[in-house]
Amino acid sequence: METMTSPSNAITIRVSLPNRPGTFAKVAEAIAKAGGNLGALDIVAVDQKKITRDITVDCRSPMHAKQVLSAVKDVKGIEIINVSDRTFLLHLGGKIKIENKIPVKTRQALSMAYTPGVARVCEAIAQDRRRAYALTIKKNTVAIVTDGTAVLGLGDIGPEAAMPVMEGKAMLFKEFGNVQAFPICLATKDVDEIVETVKRIAPGFGGINLEDISAPRCFLIEERLKQELDIPVFHDDQHGTAVVVLAGLINSLKIVKKKFRDIKVVILGAGAAGVAIVKILKRVGVRDLIVCDRKGIIYRGRKEDMNFMKEWLARHTNHQMLKGDIITAAKGADVFIGVSGPNLFPVKALKKMAKDPIVFAMANPVPEIMPEEAAPYAKIIATGRSDYPNQINNVLCFPGLFRGALDCYATDINEAMKTAAARAIASVISDNELHPEYIIPSVFNTRVAKAVAKAVVRAAVKTGVARRHRIITKVHL
Amino acid sequence: METMTSPSNAITIRVSLPNRPGTFAKVAEAIAKAGGNLGALDIVAVDQKKITRDITVDCRSPMHAKQVLSAVKDVKGIEIINVSDRTFLLHLGGKIKIENKIPVKTRQALSMAYTPGVARVCEAIAQDRRRAYALTIKKNTVAIVTDGTAVLGLGDIGPEAAMPVMEGKAMLFKEFGNVQAFPICLATKDVDEIVETVKRIAPGFGGINLEDISAPRCFLIEERLKQELDIPVFHDDQHGTAVVVLAGLINSLKIVKKKFRDIKVVILGAGAAGVAIVKILKRVGVRDLIVCDRKGIIYRGRKEDMNFMKEWLARHTNHQMLKGDIITAAKGADVFIGVSGPNLFPVKALKKMAKDPIVFAMANPVPEIMPEEAAPYAKIIATGRSDYPNQINNVLCFPGLFRGALDCYATDINEAMKTAAARAIASVISDNELHPEYIIPSVFNTRVAKAVAKAVVRAAVKTGVARRHRIITKVHL
Repeated sequence: METMTSPSNAITIRVSLPNRPGTFAKVAEAIAKAGGNLGALDIVAVDQKKITRDITVDCRSPMHAKQVLSAVKDVKGIEIINVSDRTFLLHLGGKIKIENKIPVKTRQALSMAYTPGVARVCEAIAQDRRRAYALTIKKNTVAIVTDGTAVLGLGDIGPEAAMPVMEGKAMLFKEFGNVQAFPICLATKDVDEIVETVKRIAPGFGGINLEDISAPRCFLIEERLKQELDIPVFHDDQHGTAVVVLAGLINSLKIVKKKFRDIKVVILGAGAAGVAIVKILKRVGVRDLIVCDRKGIIYRGRKEDMNFMKEWLARHTNHQMLKGDIITAAKGADVFIGVSGPNLFPVKALKKMAKDPIVFAMANPVPEIMPEEAAPYAKIIATGRSDYPNQINNVLCFPGLFRGALDCYATDINEAMKTAAARAIASVISDNELHPEYIIPSVFNTRVAKAVAKAVVRAAVKTGVARRHRIITKVHL
Repeated sequence: METMTSPSNAITIRVSLPNRPGTFAKVAEAIAKAGGNLGALDIVAVDQKKITRDITVDCRSPMHAKQVLSAVKDVKGIEIINVSDRTFLLHLGGKIKIENKIPVKTRQALSMAYTPGVARVCEAIAQDRRRAYALTIKKNTVAIVTDGTAVLGLGDIGPEAAMPVMEGKAMLFKEFGNVQAFPICLATKDVDEIVETVKRIAPGFGGINLEDISAPRCFLIEERLKQELDIPVFHDDQHGTAVVVLAGLINSLKIVKKKFRDIKVVILGAGAAGVAIVKILKRVGVRDLIVCDRKGIIYRGRKEDMNFMKEWLARHTNHQMLKGDIITAAKGADVFIGVSGPNLFPVKALKKMAKDPIVFAMANPVPEIMPEEAAPYAKIIATGRSDYPNQINNVLCFPGLFRGALDCYATDINEAMKTAAARAIASVISDNELHPEYIIPSVFNTRVAKAVAKAVVRAAVKTGVARRHRIITKVHL
């Protein structure tokens, strides 16, 4: 089955055409024949002989864009001046900006925002450094920290190449949670060095969001930072994914009328997300869990390709000591959760699942099984992609979660806060709205972040990790 | 002599008064008698009996604000509801914000700015990491790095308390150079740890601005980072100050008709700025330089309170081997440059200087000698403060300097670029505009940053530190 055209694979072609009626129709025809989806059409320049246009065409893939372009080239009398890729154009110069809250255009403003006025503010914080929460950006600012070792499905691409994802993440923090986030891409992969570095840059931040750090190092880094810092540390690839998966499962199980304690769940992928999903599902009562990695089912005593987290998984899942591949694992399973790589869950395995299979295939950008392939057999399908229904997207969790944690000056983001966030996300869809293609709210549903933040603050207060700071608005006379 | 009232010492007093004519006049009278300068007047609420107003009063100091408030309290029938300090109010929640360049309100935008579209952008950078300059915020983003050990005149106040200054600095970068800057306040004072940390966070930044790091550690940190990073590293307290001092001196010497090679310059302060000023003045031909610190004149063979930079100063200044205090040093000097602490340059010393003394007293917030005290004896007076004429303010240098360095993808900010920046700043004031109270352009003169950036690019190209990167706007078909 062919994938659909998408604006993320759009190209903008600047062409020069003879200035007479009917010429553009031939271009449009060529684009349509090549399977391109004609979008915006802008005139750049016109003279008596020639007309220059920017033609934007949604394509299916970069390869498909090549075919479309080649078809356009063949139109008689056409001259191609330039080809721009909309996604690349959008990234030029980066996607976020730093702005001043007030202009510094007068001496008065300068005297207050900078010297000499600022000195008194510094002195107030020096007397009690908790005042940094009130008087600096600390309270509302999160560092998005990565070493670029596990970026999307692309693997270890390095800190520079990770930047566009971290900037994108910062955009989501801002858009959905009104949280300010700044990317910190590290030129080291050493666990100790990453821990040290984050601790050293922490004073100006109200929280740390770890991102796209490969397993099992991510577990060590998160654990140490949580212990050693007094601000929330949250590895989104683990817990963000786990929270949204839990939210989606809460609603999915309502549709298929099953309960957590009765279901069998197969998880493909023993990385950051896989481990966190196992932990959160065990906490809500799931008893039958099987985890597979590229070497097959993880079981106690397996020798090949193990690490300390997989040993932990072997001890805490797969009580029947099943061995074998994903097809063996999937037999009789109620839920498949993929947090691995492209096309790793065969239709053959899906066919062996129990009645009303629930398939969360979340590898990005290409899922473990394409929704088109799974559709004939699965009751509920979710992916990590924004261009299919039921997107299991961390953006449903982290903006509201950090919003809540920052608002109550939390020292930590703990298990109770995560479960509260999952229930809040699920609750946004009422029982009579529930549908196999609507188990999880849209990422654009503005009720989500608010519901999450509220639930998270409640859980933080209840579990004693919320702290309060006197806000300094009065002069010290 | 009394200092003037200033908006940086303003308070806003919320008062409730009987609602009848003439009551406010008594409040205004009390404020005037106490020496306060009545500013904005806002009505908050009115009913038949009472009227609630916010009264903003510019004061001379926090102590003076206390006196004003006490005078207002004594007005009959008044009730004081709240007292807010305008400078503190301005700092609430911090002074900078991170914004998205485009909204993420549609699936199309999400698909391009984040997954799945972003993956292709990441891959392009992974193939050639120089593309990060075109496709991320790197090109236009500078880290403002401090350890909080030498903040303004306040000393070692720690990383949290340094934040308001670093945020203020970021505002100036943005306002005057359209450079994005983000504060990184470090929880370490160890030279090796600071160097390591900055190197590790460097991939996402196009430049490093070191700030308020105490001497002599700042020299080691800057030197090592300049060697080990391929982006510009600039310690503003050293070179920013030196560049603006040089600019101010170029114009001052025109007024008093003296030449660099003939003048005697006394510098009080052997910290970051003092050393950098010595270096830049030697480069433009000044031969007679004396540096003092709190122990007096620095000379070869001095044993007390020395370090490796002071040893360097002893070798490269004071060729007559002068010993003694600042009064001895000032004898016959043409120029005094203070980069030390409050009130350290006595009038007695100033009186001993040569004809037409030039006094740059730049300690912040309180200068080495107050302009009011120096006025009867000095020909030209400059300070670091924004509330006196001739402000020697680094903001004249660093925004344009980094603008130029970033625009030409410089690998370094070298000596030629700094001198070019100083000449550019000085050149903004034409010879017939020059005046003892106008030797340096206003920080709000928009021609400054443009002139500096242009001169810096030229110098960078000439000295071979400018590099070019192909900007990726075309699809890779």
